[in-house]
Amino acid sequence: MSGVRRIKLKVAYDGTDFRGSQYLPGVRTVEGELRRALSSLLRKDVELIGASRTDSGVHALGNVFIFDTDSSVPDEKFSLALDSFLPRDLRVVVSSGCAADFDPRKQKGIKTYEYSIYNARVEDPLLRRYAFFYSYEIDTDAVAEALGYMIGEHDFTSFSNPDSQVLKRGGDAVRHIFSASLILPRDDESGLGGGKGLIKLRIRGDGFLYNMVRIMVGTALEAGAGRRKPSDIEEILKKRDRRAAGMTAPANGLCLMGIDYSGVDLAVI
Amino acid sequence: MSGVRRIKLKVAYDGTDFRGSQYLPGVRTVEGELRRALSSLLRKDVELIGASRTDSGVHALGNVFIFDTDSSVPDEKFSLALDSFLPRDLRVVVSSGCAADFDPRKQKGIKTYEYSIYNARVEDPLLRRYAFFYSYEIDTDAVAEALGYMIGEHDFTSFSNPDSQVLKRGGDAVRHIFSASLILPRDDESGLGGGKGLIKLRIRGDGFLYNMVRIMVGTALEAGAGRRKPSDIEEILKKRDRRAAGMTAPANGLCLMGIDYSGVDLAVI
Repeated sequence: MSGVRRIKLKVAYDGTDFRGSQYLPGVRTVEGELRRALSSLLRKDVELIGASRTDSGVHALGNVFIFDTDSSVPDEKFSLALDSFLPRDLRVVVSSGCAADFDPRKQKGIKTYEYSIYNARVEDPLLRRYAFFYSYEIDTDAVAEALGYMIGEHDFTSFSNPDSQVLKRGGDAVRHIFSASLILPRDDESGLGGGKGLIKLRIRGDGFLYNMVRIMVGTALEAGAGRRKPSDIEEILKKRDRRAAGMTAPANGLCLMGIDYSGVDLAVI
Repeated sequence: MSGVRRIKLKVAYDGTDFRGSQYLPGVRTVEGELRRALSSLLRKDVELIGASRTDSGVHALGNVFIFDTDSSVPDEKFSLALDSFLPRDLRVVVSSGCAADFDPRKQKGIKTYEYSIYNARVEDPLLRRYAFFYSYEIDTDAVAEALGYMIGEHDFTSFSNPDSQVLKRGGDAVRHIFSASLILPRDDESGLGGGKGLIKLRIRGDGFLYNMVRIMVGTALEAGAGRRKPSDIEEILKKRDRRAAGMTAPANGLCLMGIDYSGVDLAVI
């Protein structure tokens, strides 16, 4: 049995030193490093397809890539086999076989993102790569309330970068957000020099437009700063206009935690 | 009132790209960067004294440095004033006046360290700078029990690097450990590909010999791996021989959280 089969990789990376996840010739990307490592391991050129394009500086603990191979490496051994071929800021968490027609760009999966905000008077040097440093006072109840208005099925045109390929092609901007909630620091944890410390926003949905999570977070933060009312979100959604929403929160706070294809992705093994 | 006065800085840094905290000509150190920033701000050479020497790769959220100045910058404004003169991996958290004879090398303070262990099958790229990646099974009860035997007043010769200047000068190796405990991950947090996830060991004491925290952690981990009994710690302490204890845990997991001089350091303001 050495026919060509399809392998799915669950991939984690520190996005700081990558120019995004998608292959771009001549620059350091996640796909480029995966391609280089796989081609070295298998001694032939390998092409990959990524599930979710992440921007420069955005992190992942569970992005997904697939590739086809006729290699004799067992499906679940690619994680270990690739270990020494990959740089330390990029790891394959799990490898497994999947259906030969599984296409992670087309297959709908549930994506979970976390956005980390470090609220303190002084930036924590240990968090500077992984959390957006926000030194102003923040009303976390207002942030949670604003996020609440985003839950459900909505047209998210206002929360998308207008450069979105989907929108430019006249595609559908309706997405379903299943949950959007705050994870607050413990009582004994505060920020350096004062402030609330590390706050995480966890958002799950069936799909996200270009920059959508970062604009959701930026807008919710403006509610947390008292510059908008949480209930304004309803109006912003209705307007279907990027200018109605708030700032795009910086890339470094964002992490794609995982993509759940269960019930959809029929694994071979 | 422009006489010379003494300023105390509480300092945070990501130790990854520093060759330790103490000044060394020609290499990048925490003290060197502080000296450069202060000298730029005040337009004259400034010398500092550090409270706790940390090794290459060791982090801090609360190390302490002092310097003397006759500058007109208010005591508490040095943190903000230095901000733009410092690299992003080094921050002054708080600045304050202190007694003119306050010497952080001589003044006993209570130090708190945290050691982060990432227990997983696959290393988390976002934790690689700040946690020791440990992929073997770990019995956290045994680790906690081993740490328990270290609490109290003991001669810690076995837990010191023999290159310790204190030991070489025939100094006292008796230190008092007030607490040494584990902070376990939440139930919904596990390691990538399996494992317990991020475990922190928090150790507080009135002083630490060279590499002492890292040898305490390395030895406790050997108990957690089943290679020693937790109760062996008693015997190891008695031997007063470095070879009796376990490995020196890597620098990247260690962080000096703070030094408490309360009741001792009589602040001027």
